[in-house]
This record gives sequence, C-alpha cells and structure tokens, in this order.
Amino acid sequence: MTVRSSTAAGSARGFLQKPGTTRTLERTDAGEVRRTLLPGGLRVVTEHVPGVRSASVGMWVAVGSRDEQPNVAGAAHYLEHLLFKSTSRRTAQQIAEEIDAVGGELNAFTAKEHTCYYAHVLDEDLPLAVDLVCDVVFEALCTEKDMETERSVVLEEIAMRDDDPEDLLHDAFCSALLPDHTLGRPVLGSEKSITELSRNALYNFYKRRYTLPRMVFAVAGNVKHADVLRLVRKALKARLVGDVAPIAPRKGRARIPSAPRLVLHTEDTEQTHLMLGVRALDRHDDRRFTLGVLNAALGGGMSSRLFQEVREKRGLAYQVYSSVASYSDTGHLSVYAGVQPDRLGETASVIRDVLAHVAREGLSDAEVARGKGQLRGGLVLGLEDTSSRMSRIGKGELTYGDYLTVGQTLGRIDAVTGEDIALLAKELLSRPIAAAVVGPYDHVDDVPVEVHEVMG
Amino acid sequence: MTVRSSTAAGSARGFLQKPGTTRTLERTDAGEVRRTLLPGGLRVVTEHVPGVRSASVGMWVAVGSRDEQPNVAGAAHYLEHLLFKSTSRRTAQQIAEEIDAVGGELNAFTAKEHTCYYAHVLDEDLPLAVDLVCDVVFEALCTEKDMETERSVVLEEIAMRDDDPEDLLHDAFCSALLPDHTLGRPVLGSEKSITELSRNALYNFYKRRYTLPRMVFAVAGNVKHADVLRLVRKALKARLVGDVAPIAPRKGRARIPSAPRLVLHTEDTEQTHLMLGVRALDRHDDRRFTLGVLNAALGGGMSSRLFQEVREKRGLAYQVYSSVASYSDTGHLSVYAGVQPDRLGETASVIRDVLAHVAREGLSDAEVARGKGQLRGGLVLGLEDTSSRMSRIGKGELTYGDYLTVGQTLGRIDAVTGEDIALLAKELLSRPIAAAVVGPYDHVDDVPVEVHEVMG
Repeated sequence: MTVRSSTAAGSARGFLQKPGTTRTLERTDAGEVRRTLLPGGLRVVTEHVPGVRSASVGMWVAVGSRDEQPNVAGAAHYLEHLLFKSTSRRTAQQIAEEIDAVGGELNAFTAKEHTCYYAHVLDEDLPLAVDLVCDVVFEALCTEKDMETERSVVLEEIAMRDDDPEDLLHDAFCSALLPDHTLGRPVLGSEKSITELSRNALYNFYKRRYTLPRMVFAVAGNVKHADVLRLVRKALKARLVGDVAPIAPRKGRARIPSAPRLVLHTEDTEQTHLMLGVRALDRHDDRRFTLGVLNAALGGGMSSRLFQEVREKRGLAYQVYSSVASYSDTGHLSVYAGVQPDRLGETASVIRDVLAHVAREGLSDAEVARGKGQLRGGLVLGLEDTSSRMSRIGKGELTYGDYLTVGQTLGRIDAVTGEDIALLAKELLSRPIAAAVVGPYDHVDDVPVEVHEVMG
Repeated sequence: MTVRSSTAAGSARGFLQKPGTTRTLERTDAGEVRRTLLPGGLRVVTEHVPGVRSASVGMWVAVGSRDEQPNVAGAAHYLEHLLFKSTSRRTAQQIAEEIDAVGGELNAFTAKEHTCYYAHVLDEDLPLAVDLVCDVVFEALCTEKDMETERSVVLEEIAMRDDDPEDLLHDAFCSALLPDHTLGRPVLGSEKSITELSRNALYNFYKRRYTLPRMVFAVAGNVKHADVLRLVRKALKARLVGDVAPIAPRKGRARIPSAPRLVLHTEDTEQTHLMLGVRALDRHDDRRFTLGVLNAALGGGMSSRLFQEVREKRGLAYQVYSSVASYSDTGHLSVYAGVQPDRLGETASVIRDVLAHVAREGLSDAEVARGKGQLRGGLVLGLEDTSSRMSRIGKGELTYGDYLTVGQTLGRIDAVTGEDIALLAKELLSRPIAAAVVGPYDHVDDVPVEVHEVMG
C-alpha cells in the first residue's frame, strides 16, 4: 500500500499509529486524507473535498448487535436511540432545535458490528456538528424517563419492520443462514427483549463499550484537519488523556453451530418475498473484489443474469437482485425476488439454475468486463456526496484499521480475472443454501423452495 | 426575476423563448445555467457544476397519470416501463448492457403530472447517456411481446405497493382528499386497468403525447452546453425541425367534485398507518414559501411540534412527519404517523390539537426562524449531487417555464414572516380534513379518527 507520509512517522494502520501523531494518507487534486491518533486512543480521520459547501461528521463505534448477550438483545440499537435524549448539556428538544435551526441532519444507525452517529451540515456549521455528535455519544444521561419513552418508540420500530416484508425477510434470511449465532439475530432485538431490558443493563452496556479506543471520528467536506482536531479537543476535553492504543479491528473465523435452513414467516401478503443464498467471504478476504464482480454480473444491474432471466425474459418479478454482505469473520451472497405466490416455485428454480450454471461455467468475458465497469462506475459515482466520503474513511478505519485510496480500490477491481471468478463461484455456490420466505404459506413444508446445495 | 442574458434575446420564460436561441440564466462561481430552444420545440437546459466528475441527464415529459382517461388508468406508468424494452436501435438487453458496462444508472419515474427518464454517469460517458435516454424516449417499439412481459412486471409492482403500508396509505390518502378526480387516482393504475390495457391504446397514448413541445432535456454536471446541444442534435436528428413553441406549463384551478373523506384499507398490520391533511396550495401560488416554513415547523424535523408532541413526549410513533405536495392547480399539506392500533385515537387527537393550536395562534418567532433555517440548509445541502441539480433545472423549466436561482429561492424563504404563516395556517387548517388509515379495522366506522374541520 502506497502511503505518502508527511507530518509523522508510524505505521500505515491507524490502530498501530504512534499516539499524538498525524499521518497524511493521500494527497491529490481531489483532496487530502489525514489521520491523527489522539490521546485516549481516539482516531480522527478527515478528508478535505474541494469545491463543496458542506461537511459530514460521523462517530464510528465498534459496537453492534453482535456484542450483545441474548438477555440484552437489541441493546446496541436501543442505546443508539437513547443517546439522542437528554445529555448533561442539552435536553432532547434542544438537540433537535439546534440541528433543525441550521437545516442539518443529525441521525445514527446501528449495524451488527458497529454503530455510527452522524451529522450533515453546511461547512460553516461544522463546530455545531462536532459538538452535537460528541455530546450525544459521551454525555447522554439515559434517565429512566427517557428509557421508557424510547422503549415505546423502539417497539414501534419493530412493528414497522414487521409490516415491511423486505425488512422482515432480511432478518429471516440472516437467521436461516446463521442459526444460533449472534450474527443471525435481528439488530432491533425482539419485542420481549426490548420490553424486559432494564436501564441498568443498558447503562452498563454503554459505559463499558463506548470507549475511545473503539471509536473513529471521521469528517469529510470543506474542512481542515487542524480545525477538526481543535473542535474535537474542545468537545471531549478531559477525556483525551493517556497513551492508549486503539483496539485492533475484529478478525477471526466465525463458529456457526448450525447448518443453513429454510425459514418461513407466514404473512398474508400479495407478493411472496424470497431470499436465498450462501455463506461467502469475510471482509478481510482478498477475494472480496472478485466477489464484487461476480455479484454485479449475477444480479447487480439490469443486464445481470438474474434480472434478464427472472424479470426480462419471464416477467416473474418487479424486483430481483443479488447482494453481498461481509462481517469480520463471515459473510453472505444472496438473491432477492418478489413474486406472485403461485410462481414462487418457478422463480426459485430459475434462480437456482442461474447459480448452478455460473458455478459450473463461470462468466463470459463480456460479463466480467461489464461487471468490472459497473463496480468502477458505481464506486466513483457513489462518492460524490460528503456523507459517502465520510463513511468510506470512517468505516474503513474502524473495520480495516487501514486506508485504501480510490485508485487502489479501482486497481484491485481491474486485477480480477475470469478465472478468479470461476474458482470463487465454484467454491461458494457449492455451499449449503439458506432461504427465507415471507408470504401466504401456512407451513414451511408448503413452501416450494429447495435448500439442498445448488451443485448437488 | 434577475436574468443576465448573454447570447440571445427573448423572454426569460423558456416556453416563450425565440426558437433557435440560447439564454444564459445564471452565471456564478458555482457554475452556469443555460437554456436553448431547439427547432421542434424542445428545450435544453444545462448546468455546469465545477469540480464534479459526473453528469446527470434527464428527459422531463409533461405527461403523467392525470392525463389518463379512466379506461387507460396506469398508462403513463406502464408506458414508462415499456420504453426501456426494445427500440428501433437496441434490444432491452443491449440497453441494460451498455449502461451497466460504465457503471451508470438508467431509470425513470412517473408522477401525476410528469414523467422523467434519467441517467447518471461519469462525465466521459455523457455521449452514451444522451443517446440512451433519447433512444428509449423516442424509438421504443412497444411490441406486443414486450407489452405482455411488462404487464406481469407492472402487476408485480402493484402487488408490491399493496404490501407496503406507507405506499398504500399514500394512494389511499390521495383518494380521500381528491375523490372522483384524476389526481386522486394511483399512478400505478389498478389490477383491472393494467390487465385490460391494449397495446393500441398505449401506443396511441405514447405517440399523441410524447412530443417535443411537452419536453425539457436537462443535464447537470461536468458538461458544456454546446456539447450537450451537439449530442442531442445527433440523437434526435430529423425530429428537430420546425418553428414550434413549447407548450406552456399547466395552470388553472382544480375542480374537485367531492368533499374530502375518510378512507380505510383493512390490513392485518402490526402498526396502524395514519395520514390526515387538507387541500393546500398549487405550485404557482406565491405563498408556497410560507407553506414550506409552516410545514418545517409543524412536522419537518426532530424539533417540530408534531415530532415533539407525538414521539418525544408520548412515544406514540417511531415515524411522524408532515409534508407538502403541489400540483399545477391544487396541493396538500398532510401528516403521517405509524402507531399501535390501540393508540390511533389518541395520536389522531394529538395531531389535530397541534394543527388547531397553530391555526389559532400561529408559530413562535423561534419556530419561524428555525423553520427558515431548516429550509435554507436543506435546500443547499440537497443540491450537492448532480442528480438533484438536474432535477431542479429540468422540473423547474417543465412546471414553471422559468428559472429561479438558488439565491432567489433563499431570498423568498427569508422574506416569509410570522404573520404570513399565521394567516396561511388559519386559512388552510380551517379546511375540511381528509384521512386515510391502513390497519386492522374491519369497517370505516370502527376507525377512531374524526374528519370534521380542525377549527370546527
């Protein structure tokens, strides 16, 4: 990896960097990316983006639903809600008023391995954005009263998920693919776990896990690295002490106790929603770029095999696509389709045929070239706004502890060969299949979807 | 309105411009906006955005679901699907392959008064984007075979809408607010109308309505106006002839035969989804900026009255917000909330109390200031990507035949006073209420939502 160091020594990997030092990770016409390791173990990464008028700010925390014991399922997400309520310096209403007054956005999301608190504002409002994000992440009071109000709100969010067949399907698919594993559990928790979660349990989860070495503060936009550092120091003050090393990114090999299966959610829906797929690569696997091209060619666009076979030739579905998810120690490649209940069997078998064909014969040269083009264009077009640039550097540092330039990523995509893809397709698509169905079936035995291996 | 004309004379309004001429509508550090009226009556509007690497291209057509006779309900949207199938120069698969190969996006959406075909690509792929959009809009063959495949796909899309409570609710609300009027009908049509629509009827709809004087071609990004003109001339060739004036924007006063009412869709959902609101302003009404500030303060953000009263104080809903829609001759202001069925009555009455209070007393100075700040920030932050800039100039030209700079829009927002808002709130919120509910109720009489006027 090429890193042009300018202001400090130390490793290219943020969690090994020398405390108090700053490194320049990239400097081009398109901007500059810098990283500082502050006392206390907090990493600050910024990207100066020329020509924009805004700033996106995000605190990335390496805490997610997989860190929960079963008795506090949903704690990470519930906590994310609670942090926007009263803090030691502001009421929930003041927080809302301050961000609304500048027309900015302040929000958060919780995933299985991380949580991100972010703001998007005009560049002149950067000081407010930094202060607000730091305030909610560190100074939330988590009062009993806030806890009770937010409990109803989280229960409403679960009910809303239950009314959205695609969201429900996604959670069902994870439980089908990774049964009896924390990654197979829904981020939202269950109605029962949320109803029973105590203030004490949640507060302990917060205080034990929300520590600086588990965090990356990322900012992208019309900003200067030095200004961001000044604002972070002002907001976090006495917390920034001690020669503490950040925690290294999660890594390992998932131990998943049970085999993939078929999960049915009986719902009286018009469409039947199907997701099927296999366990694939973790995010540290170098073949992830190969998987990206394979996924694009399988079901990433209108010219993909699945779109052509399922929608264009047969009109079976309005939506059909494949997607890839990766965690620190496992991942999946899955296919979604929404179809009429009486055409589910046909659709599932068309999808299986497509997968089996690619597993056997790989992709054509034209498909490989198109898949690469799609990834290249999508990568560059997807980085036009400051929010996606902030996510790229923040999530990258948190999950890899490393920085890859856009040019380096493009280079990795270009290096993928048809042979790499054929090998990977053969390996992944011979794995056991998991499937989830949301639709009007009374019993799982009535669902016309087979889950034995595609390759037999 | 200040227009700095540089290269041609003629009115500031595009549909009155002299054929063959070009006008510069704005020139600043942040770019340049130009408009040309081509022979045949096509307007081309471009915005050069410095510092970006992409281009967004859109053909805006002044044809939507309100142009349909009841016997062809859903035709505009069905047609939008069909145009992406085979053309005289490409098969559907070729179209898909060409855009996927460059990682671009090619898509369309249909609304009540317009349809837009758009592409988002890297700047170097502008020629392809212009050619593809022009090809699908003008050269589609609409074969019987394509028609049948797409019929299943559109029926799937209707089934998908039926499975999404919020989408279903939105259509139900329009039918509750504007009963027996074409604007009250769903854009998708009905299962019956789509099943019965003939190829002939659809083809006639296409050929009669997709004419150059009803269109605006808009491009924003790293592009030059002259290049865009050259590419459009190349793509449309012989069609660009004749001294034809564009059709003026729709305008008028809607005649809606029936009074607002309550519409129930019985669904076995976990949440009950509620939308209620009143008829408000058409898009030509100068008070639309006042309505924008009112809407922001009512339910536009986390500090809004509705968010605070419904979610923060009472935890009744995960989502609650207000929104504004405007058509050429009417519009609406509405409130959405997703709640537990047993708390619907309480939620509806809290919402009505908030509306009644604002109708009686207007907003505080702090709320007005915050509402303006929210609109200002949202406007600028919302124009960072080339797609939204393309939409701003394309939709603006189609629906107003006019160009308002961002500075002018900011000026209009700044000019709104608390008194303007109080007057408008009093007028709008004393109008009859329409409401729609999607949830587990058997009969409309069981729904605990009142629809008499808020102000009595």
